[in-house]
Amino acid sequence: MRGPFVGIIGAGSCESSVEELAAEVGREIARKDAVLVCGGLGGVMTAAARGAKEVGGFTVGILPGSSTQDANVYIDFPIATNMGQARNAVIVQTADVLIAVSGGYGTLSEIAMALKIGKTVIAIQNRFSIPGLKTAQTPIEAVQKALVSLRERSSPTITI
Amino acid sequence: MRGPFVGIIGAGSCESSVEELAAEVGREIARKDAVLVCGGLGGVMTAAARGAKEVGGFTVGILPGSSTQDANVYIDFPIATNMGQARNAVIVQTADVLIAVSGGYGTLSEIAMALKIGKTVIAIQNRFSIPGLKTAQTPIEAVQKALVSLRERSSPTITI
Amino acid sequence: MRGPFVGIIGAGSCESSVEELAAEVGREIARKDAVLVCGGLGGVMTAAARGAKEVGGFTVGILPGSSTQDANVYIDFPIATNMGQARNAVIVQTADVLIAVSGGYGTLSEIAMALKIGKTVIAIQNRFSIPGLKTAQTPIEAVQKALVSLRERSSPTITI
Amino acid sequence: MRGPFVGIIGAGSCESSVEELAAEVGREIARKDAVLVCGGLGGVMTAAARGAKEVGGFTVGILPGSSTQDANVYIDFPIATNMGQARNAVIVQTADVLIAVSGGYGTLSEIAMALKIGKTVIAIQNRFSIPGLKTAQTPIEAVQKALVSLRERSSPTITI
Repeated sequence: MRGPFVGIIGAGSCESSVEELAAEVGREIARKDAVLVCGGLGGVMTAAARGAKEVGGFTVGILPGSSTQDANVYIDFPIATNMGQARNAVIVQTADVLIAVSGGYGTLSEIAMALKIGKTVIAIQNRFSIPGLKTAQTPIEAVQKALVSLRERSSPTITI
Repeated sequence: MRGPFVGIIGAGSCESSVEELAAEVGREIARKDAVLVCGGLGGVMTAAARGAKEVGGFTVGILPGSSTQDANVYIDFPIATNMGQARNAVIVQTADVLIAVSGGYGTLSEIAMALKIGKTVIAIQNRFSIPGLKTAQTPIEAVQKALVSLRERSSPTITI
Repeated sequence: MRGPFVGIIGAGSCESSVEELAAEVGREIARKDAVLVCGGLGGVMTAAARGAKEVGGFTVGILPGSSTQDANVYIDFPIATNMGQARNAVIVQTADVLIAVSGGYGTLSEIAMALKIGKTVIAIQNRFSIPGLKTAQTPIEAVQKALVSLRERSSPTITI
Repeated sequence: MRGPFVGIIGAGSCESSVEELAAEVGREIARKDAVLVCGGLGGVMTAAARGAKEVGGFTVGILPGSSTQDANVYIDFPIATNMGQARNAVIVQTADVLIAVSGGYGTLSEIAMALKIGKTVIAIQNRFSIPGLKTAQTPIEAVQKALVSLRERSSPTITI
């Protein structure tokens, strides 16, 4: 197996400043030889996958629809779940650790499901107040914290 | 079709004071001839379904596992999704409106998915700060607000 | 829990002679106080649910889409899985035993998944040659064989 | 996107002669620069993924469980669906074309779902009599027929 698998979650459409953060997260994931896992569509997902491909990384897109053609052009391996937003659970289960970049309700559901099953989530430009959610100020810090958490494999100490 | 379908979401194990709130929500749902939809397991789900059955209502339990035998004894119609926590999306899609009773990460994921697709969520003993989430002080108020929202069919005016 | 739960599977559009068979299966399921579980849409599903309602039975429709409004008018309890044809697995897991009325590829997938997990399937107007699949000549015989199989709870003796 | 994506389906445990067929299918898929998609577990799935890795191909494993650790060691990109056998639908949707190597009920369900949505399935050591299912005598013939079908993009002309 390749890996580790770092999930990146965020809105399907967003401002360019958020896209640039996501792209830098994607680049840093690839620089560390981790595999980027995301929802395969637009906004944060496209920007992050683009970043990963710029530095030669691998990208997996777990799509809500029934066609792999829905994936953005930076996705190497699209998965057509046809589960709608229930595919968020598949992203969370497949990723070893997750990084949230800003985001709305969909991202919030992913954070909650990840924490529910004991996975670490690092948020940049965090908009949510959730016990157990960790934060970072920069893409590089976020990826570093994510990869360190995998080595520690510690459960979150604060949960609800 | 019977209905309306009111979803009740909350933790699978909880204090007896929370269970009593859930049971009263269940009773009130049934008194209003609505159908109770829940996750079919313990804690808030058992208490709410028990309440609904006490006054002759119907209960649907959308289970995470593969066997209908997992349902609590107050569930009339168990659905064996075998989807794990992705079944939370099925609860949210099936319910016309949702009432959250306290709850943890799993409940938070359901609130987020419901708001994502424009469904109203009323929270009692609310633990979360989420734009667009409505609150109630009592079970009767929660059910009343839930049913009124169906008549108004208004989209949430505050979203993220 | 109510029950037993008898799944009825078949094509979403079919000839009127097949619809009449399905309706009679639905009536017989309801006469025996069993709950009818189906895919909630047209053809065999509509006819069977109509039959069950004609004699006062309960009907559950496990839908492929995201809206309970997709259900045919004879469904009491619609479930909006939004899983596409993966919802066939949910029908199979939720039903205690299944009756196939004619059918095409979708029905074949349900028969295969049911036999895979050791559930009995009785086929009327059977179009498939599958080891372990049982057959009946009439709706009444099919429902009788289905309910007897639940009492016996024997595993299929021929499998592949 | 990489690709095309060729799905290989078959039993989770099988005789060594079937494993050797599957391994050769995997090798041929990789020689043609296609990506192998499978269920990620044992038997035909392990053998095919091993074959693909022997000649430097990429492998995707769409798992029924909740942990990527369930994947066999030849899977590069494991997807943890936690959907049980409903994951068969995800394999079928994700693959552009499928090759069945022998197989039992699970494989039959995948063949049926694939034909339902108009995808070509080529069977080696075919055990099923299904209208629209194509056959091949050797792994090389199977992969050739699969890839040709993608160029033709013709719908199956015989369906049920």
